[in-house]
Amino acid sequence: MRTIFRQDLEEIGDGLLHLGTLVATAVDKAARSLKEADLQLAEEVIVGDNEIDELEERIESSCLTMLALQQPVATDLRVVVAALRMSATLERMGDLARHVAFAARGAYPNHVANGELQETLVKMADLASTLVHKLVSLLEDHNLELVTEIANEDNQLDALLRDTFDLLIRQQVPANRQQVVDAVLLSRFLERLGDHSLSGAKRVAYLVTGDLDASALIDDPHIEMD
Amino acid sequence: MRTIFRQDLEEIGDGLLHLGTLVATAVDKAARSLKEADLQLAEEVIVGDNEIDELEERIESSCLTMLALQQPVATDLRVVVAALRMSATLERMGDLARHVAFAARGAYPNHVANGELQETLVKMADLASTLVHKLVSLLEDHNLELVTEIANEDNQLDALLRDTFDLLIRQQVPANRQQVVDAVLLSRFLERLGDHSLSGAKRVAYLVTGDLDASALIDDPHIEMD
Repeated sequence: MRTIFRQDLEEIGDGLLHLGTLVATAVDKAARSLKEADLQLAEEVIVGDNEIDELEERIESSCLTMLALQQPVATDLRVVVAALRMSATLERMGDLARHVAFAARGAYPNHVANGELQETLVKMADLASTLVHKLVSLLEDHNLELVTEIANEDNQLDALLRDTFDLLIRQQVPANRQQVVDAVLLSRFLERLGDHSLSGAKRVAYLVTGDLDASALIDDPHIEMD
Repeated sequence: MRTIFRQDLEEIGDGLLHLGTLVATAVDKAARSLKEADLQLAEEVIVGDNEIDELEERIESSCLTMLALQQPVATDLRVVVAALRMSATLERMGDLARHVAFAARGAYPNHVANGELQETLVKMADLASTLVHKLVSLLEDHNLELVTEIANEDNQLDALLRDTFDLLIRQQVPANRQQVVDAVLLSRFLERLGDHSLSGAKRVAYLVTGDLDASALIDDPHIEMD
């Protein structure tokens, strides 16, 4: 029984890593579709989201079966519950990548915005992509230094969100209504990708260290845009 | 052991109902702060979110303790896992109510927007409040007719989101940049409140009917704005 259990846990871990890799690729492509006004990439992200959803359902089902049949306790239970949450978080990040791709597709053949507004959105997308890749690395090798990096970069992402709103509201950069709407939604989606990366990273840190206050690893406990 | 277990399950159920009631009150106040440009109500929502977060943590902790110590199986396991998720969903809805209150506070002493744009946002806020109250009723008395009502009203909320974007982009209603930004964010927050209400309602339906495809109860399987 215990050996089967270990195998199941490993399968769940492998599934999460695979899911994380799919999501990182989706965010990467979504960021590039935004930067390069690339319709093909945007379509790939939109179509590819099904695979992410299906994998998430399989992982969830494995976790629930494991909770029901093998009744893990202590650390194992913590791992299974964390895996359930991590897979939900990753699935949501896939949705956000798809939202970004929708905006890029809607604006095609143009970029979503122009000038400094577009540059700031592209910076946000690049940073979101970096963050998601770091979360996948963290899942893979449990290097906790990545948690601090992710926290710092999530702060940068929050700052870029404020920059976007500053460009729109205070600096009144030229942009038509569609561009303003897209910029607001995109900056929010990208900022949420950062939030989810950080909360996923904290979850991994908690599993690795067993420290309930894994947020102590991190300078800024702020998870969400207010 | 079994008796203690039943008691624990009931406590978790009571906790969820209390959490749902707090969130419904928060959404209600946030909607009124938007409609009436009421600073006091907005402040109450913002300050009150701490209580929601704390209760969510207590429920989560009870669920995890229960999983670890009492190792529930079958229906009981399903209830505990669903309770974990429902409490996370409700907590997130509390955050969204707080976001709405922030926008109302930021615009004070003015309304967030004017004319038809403001009217549409207020309609969305009222509908979101109705949805959350119905979710709480569903938690309380398991009347599954509410699931269909929530699904239909969530569709109406999605339609109002499209109306808001149509007013902004196609009809070009008069609004300054701050108002456009606020309207986009608010309509998104309110639409997400509908999504969360529906996914929470489906979870309750699943628990009550044991039917994995509880979504069959519902006309439109669409959970999310695309």
